[in-house]
Amino acid sequence: MQITIDPIGHVRSTRAEVRDDDWDREVASIELDTTTFGPDALLGLQQFSHVEVLYCFDQVPESKIERGARRPRGNPDWPLVGIFAQRGKNRPNRLGATIAKIVRVEGTTLHVSGLDAVDGTPVVDLKPYMDEFGPRGAVTQPTWATELMHGYWDTSA
Amino acid sequence: MQITIDPIGHVRSTRAEVRDDDWDREVASIELDTTTFGPDALLGLQQFSHVEVLYCFDQVPESKIERGARRPRGNPDWPLVGIFAQRGKNRPNRLGATIAKIVRVEGTTLHVSGLDAVDGTPVVDLKPYMDEFGPRGAVTQPTWATELMHGYWDTSA
Repeated sequence: MQITIDPIGHVRSTRAEVRDDDWDREVASIELDTTTFGPDALLGLQQFSHVEVLYCFDQVPESKIERGARRPRGNPDWPLVGIFAQRGKNRPNRLGATIAKIVRVEGTTLHVSGLDAVDGTPVVDLKPYMDEFGPRGAVTQPTWATELMHGYWDTSA
Repeated sequence: MQITIDPIGHVRSTRAEVRDDDWDREVASIELDTTTFGPDALLGLQQFSHVEVLYCFDQVPESKIERGARRPRGNPDWPLVGIFAQRGKNRPNRLGATIAKIVRVEGTTLHVSGLDAVDGTPVVDLKPYMDEFGPRGAVTQPTWATELMHGYWDTSA
């Protein structure tokens, strides 16, 4: 069974080219598709501090999709890891999910900070972040993940 | 432009019927589609404490999808809220996203706890939860969201 999805809007970002790191320097917003949605679809979103953005890595060609294991970013210092144990873009269904900070809502445009998607990226859902949907209990992760994330948001940090 | 998605597997859960609350009492796992994936797709996932599960609310009929604003759960005590400012299932593209706790990986089966999806739900992605992908800065949310979530995981809490 296949599932068909219609983008609900698109990312507008100061970053047009695909690069791995340093996302916090970009300014981004999400423009809803105004043929389907009006401002009422975003009503009350401003009362939340954060939004979960689901989007599609639409620039990844089918031939690059990994279905088994690989070293994250091809880095020989990191272990072989299954595609569902990493968040890289070359994945089945090409879906990305990021919790961004809400800056402001303006009509059918949602201004955010901390969104790791390039200009033109199709957005497939927006969900308000609720504390109760965060991880429950202690969070642990392997060393390679912490190393990979080191410059992801801010390389000067 | 439409996006086509193939489920990567399905949820197995002790809950078969759709209900809103009290999800923590259920036992759940995700079985990968073994015609496409082997155990290597989950390699190393056990080194993380939590996994983000993206899935499809496939039992929601097209006619029930909300594209504007409504009161969450139809509750007259709560305000009119845009569909992208709530996490209800009757939403465009019918996608769900939940951070569950990893219990163990067993071949192509991932055992989890705290998954709010019924038996048979198609799963469209799995991503390891990394601290750096959590909300950054203080989290705030409106009162109605906190009230709605009160019994979501555990009605006796």
